[in-house]
Amino acid sequence: MKKVSVGASKKYEVLIGRGLLAELGRLTAEVKPCCRVALITDDVVDCLYGDRAKKSLEDAGFCVVRYVFKNGERSKDLSTYADILDWLSESGITRTDLIAALGGGVCGDMAGFAAATFLRGLDYIQIPTTLLSMVDSSVGGKTAVDLKAGKNLVGAFHQPIRVICDTETLSTLSEEIFADGASETIKYGILKDRRIFDLFNEGRAKEEIDDIIRRSVEIKSWYVEQDEFDTGLRMYLNLGHTTGHAVEKLSDFSVSHGHAVAIGMVIAADMAASLSLMKREDAELIKDNLKRNGLPVSTPFSAEELGEVALSDKKRMGGSIKLILPTGIGSCCLYETDAKRLPELFGLSEAVGAAVQK
Amino acid sequence: MKKVSVGASKKYEVLIGRGLLAELGRLTAEVKPCCRVALITDDVVDCLYGDRAKKSLEDAGFCVVRYVFKNGERSKDLSTYADILDWLSESGITRTDLIAALGGGVCGDMAGFAAATFLRGLDYIQIPTTLLSMVDSSVGGKTAVDLKAGKNLVGAFHQPIRVICDTETLSTLSEEIFADGASETIKYGILKDRRIFDLFNEGRAKEEIDDIIRRSVEIKSWYVEQDEFDTGLRMYLNLGHTTGHAVEKLSDFSVSHGHAVAIGMVIAADMAASLSLMKREDAELIKDNLKRNGLPVSTPFSAEELGEVALSDKKRMGGSIKLILPTGIGSCCLYETDAKRLPELFGLSEAVGAAVQK
Repeated sequence: MKKVSVGASKKYEVLIGRGLLAELGRLTAEVKPCCRVALITDDVVDCLYGDRAKKSLEDAGFCVVRYVFKNGERSKDLSTYADILDWLSESGITRTDLIAALGGGVCGDMAGFAAATFLRGLDYIQIPTTLLSMVDSSVGGKTAVDLKAGKNLVGAFHQPIRVICDTETLSTLSEEIFADGASETIKYGILKDRRIFDLFNEGRAKEEIDDIIRRSVEIKSWYVEQDEFDTGLRMYLNLGHTTGHAVEKLSDFSVSHGHAVAIGMVIAADMAASLSLMKREDAELIKDNLKRNGLPVSTPFSAEELGEVALSDKKRMGGSIKLILPTGIGSCCLYETDAKRLPELFGLSEAVGAAVQK
Repeated sequence: MKKVSVGASKKYEVLIGRGLLAELGRLTAEVKPCCRVALITDDVVDCLYGDRAKKSLEDAGFCVVRYVFKNGERSKDLSTYADILDWLSESGITRTDLIAALGGGVCGDMAGFAAATFLRGLDYIQIPTTLLSMVDSSVGGKTAVDLKAGKNLVGAFHQPIRVICDTETLSTLSEEIFADGASETIKYGILKDRRIFDLFNEGRAKEEIDDIIRRSVEIKSWYVEQDEFDTGLRMYLNLGHTTGHAVEKLSDFSVSHGHAVAIGMVIAADMAASLSLMKREDAELIKDNLKRNGLPVSTPFSAEELGEVALSDKKRMGGSIKLILPTGIGSCCLYETDAKRLPELFGLSEAVGAAVQK
């Protein structure tokens, strides 16, 4: 089992290892005295791991109640949030009890927001079951639900008291969902860690996944510790995201987050190469690696379409836009420019307005 | 104008004075650069002060959009909260904009919770227009909405960047709503400030209201600064509240918060006198003062009814219960006892199970 200590104002541990779900109760008891546990999960994850999680918690003396919502991003809305709050209340959950989020990003985000706000905040643990949620939502304390107008528009910062990643659960992910997480993980490689990048490139990611997750969590944690409330440095974690979000929106979310970020990273790499910030061969290497890992590397949307949507994104401030661009495999820079130049910059990438390659 | 600097991790000022609404724009500009302001208020307050607030903000260069909800506690639910979030999103409010809550406690709680969670938190100012919200919600950063199961069950801690109390707005309050605030204000007198208590007792409260509010804010601030996340000392502010909440619930909220707290304080004073923690004549003084200020000093509910409801309250921990009891006018103590004794303690007060006196 690997441990990473993360968090800024409040420290907690991310535990990574095979078969940790069987030890969930003991690992929870290390950070929380006996209490009621509100286990929140979706129907797909519940079938696979719900009973195992519940049993382990009960064996350690916890009293478990369970809430199961329908799998998928559509559940991450204010209506499910309200149902969860009513259920927490009916279940007699008090301020000293615990919320446990078992599942992917949707579950962690929504159960986390409930934990942040029910009775003005109670403890929660995350048990992520997707690669994406292990490397991404496990650090940073961001919780959220969606509004009709957009994703993650409501939420709170709320740190879990522990994150338990059982990497055996990754074996039940579809190739597509695994690829979604691979995209964000390769991102950490491009940002700061050539070894992560190479393991994916050499097809050795699955055999070394525990180490890869540890390294990714350490990198995200490094950024977040220096910038807990997301006001500056954490922006580097948005590599590929400004464009990625635009692709998600333009596709009406038929392109998943990780897939969209992959396209965003290819475009960022092309921009960087065209602006002579990075060697062209490194940009090609990024593209090839993503492709090799089942990710799309181009988009049919035009530079104008992407520009327009990206500029309406909440991350734009005033008349300028900040982009994170790679300068090599393992290093990036912040590139600030006039927001009006964005469509022109998109035009620098061959991945834009192309027939989709996969 | 009086100023009190409050807050623990983040300091802000509570400004108190007659006619401050006319200076709202200038006083806001002192703490926030020009931006969009989402002014949230209820229909009753909007008729009285909405245009004045908007004009003052616009004169100072702010761009104002306004949301008006129906007056009353019933609006403080997840449904209005969701409507406000959708409206903020449609109005194009961004992370660097401002939410302004104009109104009483319901407005401050709900607009504050929206400010705490929309885009994971943006700045907000409170412009309380009731005595209760000036002395109570102005300090502590508590925001909340109600669930079907109970009041304030969902919320967040979120400090305003400034609180502006125009005491002229108190002149449009009904006697009953003013009395509601008087109850919480007299509470500060019983806790720590004989002068507040005496001003109410001598019928001089209205003429000295600016000073009374300043003193109350200072007292609440003193407790909150030492206990930002409500884990210990802040419990003193619950004088009269354990019983008060039980009265509110048993009456199905036909007894208002301040009125219920008055009853709770009379009962606490009776308990304290019976337990020889305070002189009987001080208990009588408390009762007389509350009565003189238009507040009820007894309840038809029985000791058993009150005990049962109080013990189901979220503030009970394990098998013991903590009560705040006065030891004199201006001093209180924390009295911890077996929760089972609560009905017996209620039985010590003549105010319990009585025909309502007013």
